[in-house]
Amino acid sequence: MSTKENVLSIFALGGLNEVGKNMYAIEYSNNIVIIDCGNKFPDESLLGIDLIIPDITYLLENKDKITALIVTHGHEDHIGGIPFFLKKLNVPVYATRFTLGLIELKLEEHKLLRDTELIEIDSSSNLNFDDINVTFFKVNHSIPDCLGVVFNTPEGKIVHTGDFKFDLTPANNEHSDIHKMAEIGRDGVFLLLSESTNAERPGLTPSEQMVGKHVEDAFMKAERKVILSTFASNINRIQQVVDAAQKTNRKISLLGRSMVNVVDIAIERGYLTVPDGMIIEQHEINELAPEKVAILCTGSQGEPLAALARLSTGNFRGVDILPEDTVIFAAGPIPGNERNVTRIVDNLLTLGAKVIYGTGSTSGMHVSGHGYQEDLKLMLTLMKPKYFIPIHGEYRMLHHHRLLAESVGVEQGNTFIMNNGDVVDITNSIARQTRKIPAGNTYVDGIGVGDVGDMVLRDRKQLSEDGMLVIVLTMSKREGKLVSEPDTISRGFVFNRDSEELIREVNRLITKTVNDLQKGNKIQWNVIKQSIKKSVGQYLFTQTKRKPMILPIIIEI
Amino acid sequence: MSTKENVLSIFALGGLNEVGKNMYAIEYSNNIVIIDCGNKFPDESLLGIDLIIPDITYLLENKDKITALIVTHGHEDHIGGIPFFLKKLNVPVYATRFTLGLIELKLEEHKLLRDTELIEIDSSSNLNFDDINVTFFKVNHSIPDCLGVVFNTPEGKIVHTGDFKFDLTPANNEHSDIHKMAEIGRDGVFLLLSESTNAERPGLTPSEQMVGKHVEDAFMKAERKVILSTFASNINRIQQVVDAAQKTNRKISLLGRSMVNVVDIAIERGYLTVPDGMIIEQHEINELAPEKVAILCTGSQGEPLAALARLSTGNFRGVDILPEDTVIFAAGPIPGNERNVTRIVDNLLTLGAKVIYGTGSTSGMHVSGHGYQEDLKLMLTLMKPKYFIPIHGEYRMLHHHRLLAESVGVEQGNTFIMNNGDVVDITNSIARQTRKIPAGNTYVDGIGVGDVGDMVLRDRKQLSEDGMLVIVLTMSKREGKLVSEPDTISRGFVFNRDSEELIREVNRLITKTVNDLQKGNKIQWNVIKQSIKKSVGQYLFTQTKRKPMILPIIIEI
Repeated sequence: MSTKENVLSIFALGGLNEVGKNMYAIEYSNNIVIIDCGNKFPDESLLGIDLIIPDITYLLENKDKITALIVTHGHEDHIGGIPFFLKKLNVPVYATRFTLGLIELKLEEHKLLRDTELIEIDSSSNLNFDDINVTFFKVNHSIPDCLGVVFNTPEGKIVHTGDFKFDLTPANNEHSDIHKMAEIGRDGVFLLLSESTNAERPGLTPSEQMVGKHVEDAFMKAERKVILSTFASNINRIQQVVDAAQKTNRKISLLGRSMVNVVDIAIERGYLTVPDGMIIEQHEINELAPEKVAILCTGSQGEPLAALARLSTGNFRGVDILPEDTVIFAAGPIPGNERNVTRIVDNLLTLGAKVIYGTGSTSGMHVSGHGYQEDLKLMLTLMKPKYFIPIHGEYRMLHHHRLLAESVGVEQGNTFIMNNGDVVDITNSIARQTRKIPAGNTYVDGIGVGDVGDMVLRDRKQLSEDGMLVIVLTMSKREGKLVSEPDTISRGFVFNRDSEELIREVNRLITKTVNDLQKGNKIQWNVIKQSIKKSVGQYLFTQTKRKPMILPIIIEI
Repeated sequence: MSTKENVLSIFALGGLNEVGKNMYAIEYSNNIVIIDCGNKFPDESLLGIDLIIPDITYLLENKDKITALIVTHGHEDHIGGIPFFLKKLNVPVYATRFTLGLIELKLEEHKLLRDTELIEIDSSSNLNFDDINVTFFKVNHSIPDCLGVVFNTPEGKIVHTGDFKFDLTPANNEHSDIHKMAEIGRDGVFLLLSESTNAERPGLTPSEQMVGKHVEDAFMKAERKVILSTFASNINRIQQVVDAAQKTNRKISLLGRSMVNVVDIAIERGYLTVPDGMIIEQHEINELAPEKVAILCTGSQGEPLAALARLSTGNFRGVDILPEDTVIFAAGPIPGNERNVTRIVDNLLTLGAKVIYGTGSTSGMHVSGHGYQEDLKLMLTLMKPKYFIPIHGEYRMLHHHRLLAESVGVEQGNTFIMNNGDVVDITNSIARQTRKIPAGNTYVDGIGVGDVGDMVLRDRKQLSEDGMLVIVLTMSKREGKLVSEPDTISRGFVFNRDSEELIREVNRLITKTVNDLQKGNKIQWNVIKQSIKKSVGQYLFTQTKRKPMILPIIIEI
């Protein structure tokens, strides 16, 4: 065995210094095992971008080594990149039954289902990939069927927690494998990768059952229709809504494509129990008395095209929100979505609805699926890691998670706060952060994957702020002179009667610029274009304090 | 006196169903008195817009009636529209000494200072505008020298609270005129306009002194430089920072233009007491031991160009944040700014600074200047209004404020939840919401005021998402035929080698479209343009799922 083969490497291609696009990998000898392949939604600076997925250059360069993609759970930031990944790399995918259901839905959309090897696992599975043996443990989170992963390697145990909280009274009675975790960590694990989302929040995450109680109370009090919006994937919460509806003799209608799809999968695979005949079609809503109806819908984050947004503006065909209906946001706004949510609250209140929402003061209708500080300390205590890599979070979350780890005994200097692409190499029981591999964001825009780069985004930004001015010059090829007046067209820049004079002035300026340049000798088109950009740009800035994109086009005749 | 003259009207041109651009007015006979003239910052959907100010069409149509602009306090959402207003309407401006300082700063920038009549008032002022007598009362808020306004009219007392909280231990010992308020409301006021910002929050706003204690603690603990960021206008908070610096033997340096300007005004006008020699220049920071220095800077909202953002990325010339420095965010993030703030926190932590900030758990470094539910109920109780108009807030805030009013005795049906432009007319002691006047948003973009409208914004939106394609066709005037290949240029759409083929395909399609149209007879340029937009648009959408703006330009030769 060469020295090189003795190195065990760990790295992330997504999920560090960000919330989203999780993708971690463990490499040993000629074997790469990948954990998760998520996507991330762009912030408003990435104009026109639909999705962000991990840059997988390194994996493409080492594709023969990849033996498995293990998926910890079915949230978008853990499975959303899979179709794009599979289009480039045909790797078997291992996941639990419910997670596979969500992955299959995605693969079907991308017409990849037939060609992908999907392997169902559960918390008792035991897999071998060359020198790496993999086992699992159940964790609680805000979606069913979540796993933590144990890699038994020649260098010792490496544990990846997945996303988790400790819920001692889980809504579905599926408890975390806390005894198994204790067993795994009894002699200490070599390295722990643990999620950091709530590392800034003191205390212990409240139990999902708390939401159930509040939902039931609200259903009891409601005198007319109840409309409840939550994440479609939070099946345990949906089960509690179903239970509340049953107790109050309501039928349930599902609105929104993902709500219908995911509930279908959950029922079919046994994760959600709904009495026969309880789910009604949309058109049946108006046939029942309002106090006999509950609507479960998408759009709790204020997504402008989702069911709840359309209901709030009276744009959902066949379903109306009426005075005294009760609307419940059973999900907290994810940072960045607050304004979209409160806009919908405003609209719902103007319709006369009673609205239970979580901004301003907490409504009791949401608990986090991610462990708070005490949950994270419990995991660290159970696992007793020698080395620690906080994952799944922005820098301050990773930073606080390090402090938590040190508070429960991880030695100072043994925590690695890394970037995507940073590699921790382990040899002879010592872990060191050493080299870097390529990592970054790949943008998905429409059908295109990776074809929109910084240059295109820079252009979109300039266009978005100040618009553009297209200037067409017709020049005679022979004499190199303007044949006619320049033709100037603006979009997104100015639009009113005042600007006619401005455009005339621009045209005069262009003619002058070209004529000045040409004093006798013929000059290059590029020089003309540059001069026009400069002189027109300066002129427009002094006149308007705006900097539109200026696009001179020369037509030779 | 005609019937018409007997009507007292109240309306808002800004501030209803929004937080920002406050502007209210009271009209009686031939007299309009305006209260406040603020601006609002655009959300990300208003691409390229710098500011939003009230549409003052109605005031321009009635300019001879306007007798006064009374300003309650110096926040941007109450004074930021004044320069634009004064450019159109020369009206005397009434405000307190500190508020006037901030207004003067603004007018100087806009070169309006010389031509404006500014009249200093205080809480004991008594003004008469035709039939309307105006008196004032002091309120606490997050800026010094704030007023509530009482209009003694032929129809009774109309009270406008301004922005307020009840702080029984204000940091500057300037107490609210609570006895005066009780006196005003003893027999009940006819109509109350009261601000609604925190109508969703239960309890009583904490006192500003709480922040002082936390700041002092942090200064005591800090072993190196302290950098504290807050709103420049929150002079009472700044006084507490100055006091903490004095107790811990630190000099203070001010970074950021508005911090320097506003602190100057506050010292000069007696609202801030700073020991001689305590304020040092920026270049002196590095001459002192770090534990002798405090920096007071702008940028607490994460503004990308403000001092704190630049410090956090090492881009503030001459001042560095070093390991173990303490950085304090003494301001909560305004909704929408959370991500900009946390980005800066992340950067500061990577520099090794200790950061005290308010996301995740409260830091004690900020209290609101706006009254919570109990403050609002106290005001309603003191004023005992017959009619009530909740102002200064989005719909759900106004809605909750109405519920609060009803809970302390305002009769159901006597609260008006209005839009900007809705008018309440009062005759014979009865108030009715009746007519509408023009109201809306006027956009400021660069120098332009109101020249960017919906059409320009729609173009900017399309350009921002999918870019554009300019297609230049050279057509012979005589034959109406293409003279050469089309010239196609894209920006913000695609940019890589793959797209060369796409553009070639587009050019082939254009040529075909034009030739098909021309089968023999000469056709109109407009028809050609429309056909190209359609065929190219469809082609690009099927190929890319994007919809760039398509701009065909025909050059006749």
